[in-house]
Amino acid sequence: MHRSLFLLIALSMTLTAPTCAQAAPAPRGMARILADAPASAWRNLNPARLLVMRLPQGRVVIELAPRFAPAHVANIEMLARAHYWDGLAITRVQDDFVTQWGDPDAGTPRQRALPAGLPRALPAEYERSARGLDFTRLPDGDVYAPEVGFVDGFPVGENPRTQHAWLLHCYGMVGVGRDNPPDTGNGAELYAVIGQAPRQLDRNIALVGRVVQGMDLLAELPRGHGPLGFYRDAAQRTRILSVRLASTLPAAERPRLQALRTATPSFAALVAARRDRSNPWFVRQAGRIDVCNVPLPVRKLPAATP
Amino acid sequence: MHRSLFLLIALSMTLTAPTCAQAAPAPRGMARILADAPASAWRNLNPARLLVMRLPQGRVVIELAPRFAPAHVANIEMLARAHYWDGLAITRVQDDFVTQWGDPDAGTPRQRALPAGLPRALPAEYERSARGLDFTRLPDGDVYAPEVGFVDGFPVGENPRTQHAWLLHCYGMVGVGRDNPPDTGNGAELYAVIGQAPRQLDRNIALVGRVVQGMDLLAELPRGHGPLGFYRDAAQRTRILSVRLASTLPAAERPRLQALRTATPSFAALVAARRDRSNPWFVRQAGRIDVCNVPLPVRKLPAATP
Repeated sequence: MHRSLFLLIALSMTLTAPTCAQAAPAPRGMARILADAPASAWRNLNPARLLVMRLPQGRVVIELAPRFAPAHVANIEMLARAHYWDGLAITRVQDDFVTQWGDPDAGTPRQRALPAGLPRALPAEYERSARGLDFTRLPDGDVYAPEVGFVDGFPVGENPRTQHAWLLHCYGMVGVGRDNPPDTGNGAELYAVIGQAPRQLDRNIALVGRVVQGMDLLAELPRGHGPLGFYRDAAQRTRILSVRLASTLPAAERPRLQALRTATPSFAALVAARRDRSNPWFVRQAGRIDVCNVPLPVRKLPAATP
Repeated sequence: MHRSLFLLIALSMTLTAPTCAQAAPAPRGMARILADAPASAWRNLNPARLLVMRLPQGRVVIELAPRFAPAHVANIEMLARAHYWDGLAITRVQDDFVTQWGDPDAGTPRQRALPAGLPRALPAEYERSARGLDFTRLPDGDVYAPEVGFVDGFPVGENPRTQHAWLLHCYGMVGVGRDNPPDTGNGAELYAVIGQAPRQLDRNIALVGRVVQGMDLLAELPRGHGPLGFYRDAAQRTRILSVRLASTLPAAERPRLQALRTATPSFAALVAARRDRSNPWFVRQAGRIDVCNVPLPVRKLPAATP
């Protein structure tokens, strides 16, 4: 197995040994497909679009999706530049649902001031026009959306009738918490999906990106046992050391990551290999795949890359 | 909220306040539906079918499914009666996939002896005849199976053409690990699903039940960083204090739990309420629900129940 490879969504490679390279006519396993992918099939993750959250346990890296939620992403960038989250906390871990972070004192007199000039009421960026998006359709069907597929590596739903597109609540996706009125999320309160895709949230709340490294750190946190998974005891919270845009970090500290482009033959081969496995462990092939079971391969930049 | 209520699958109740009881004509939220459910809509979980695993952190309770994997369940019962798992460990936690437990020394000369007489080669109980099952169909569709629904509280797939039925790999489901030949799982190595439903495993491996209490204890464990999520370092493993059939425990130690019957109007109302939410937080209703997003309500036996 590539030691340099970080797979966002677990490879689910079976319960036994990793897939071996097969003899020539056999279908290729995922490791081989990734090894064979040309350099052009990978894109460097843009440091201006990466949020780096440092926790005592390690680093969580989130790729932002400004094409889907530009106003929300702009607020998040402004909050990161203001070092808003430094010293705040992970306040909620609800099993099979979300890990959430922000200001534990939000809504109380002790709450941290938001940066001056931060827009407080944001548009409901829950879907957008499908026009101009390079949508890679997944033909396998979906329970919730008329069409599903990928745009820029993100899982996306589409309605061909209304020509709308939206991000999907798959494992590892990151969104902006809000209260009942739709314009109440300002970006200060973020969550990541840590369980079975809560797709009922799609088009009800702004998704702004996805975790591309360190997802396990958010998923393995102790569950909260207050209502909705909030911690009852402040001591249970995980302290956030800092949140920065990668582009504002010293060069040596920036994550140097690549993701497989989703509009490439290599990604199509990967989807096919996940739908029907080459691994002899399988006695039956699913023949289908759920959009939230398709992994986004993310790896460290090869050493030779500028 | 009922303090006595344990919901197996996270309620995903939105990111704000729990659902309030609505005025008369409004749809009922889940809490109200459960409060209104008659006693006959609940079934007592049979202690002869409950596996109780004690970990240092607390207790995990698994309801077994002998109607789907009778030979595998018989082995598991025999292993529990022999105290086979006592002192063994959780050996693997692969993020967004499974938590697995058994003998860390399996396959080595130090491995623990299996009980004398334990069948080693079991039939591939990956599906069964649909005949005789009280199948509550979910009409929402599914990516993987022709039909999906519930039998005895378990999520089930069905093929009306072949008249076969099988358990589904939803969050919290428990299965028996195996090597490449299908008859190599003997029940000593178990796993629980802790992420997005790995439905490609359906009909490839024996599912034997589901966690009905303590799922968070299995999901919040530190992820393993060896291949396939096995722990690299033995010290990272969680020790299993004991595994027992509840029926062999002293009466005072037995879990006293009830689950909502899935073939009842109360369960149908719950599915409807999860498909279209009464909570005003939602600006759009999904109108559909994935079988793995339907929660199985489990609660403590009301005090008055014999």
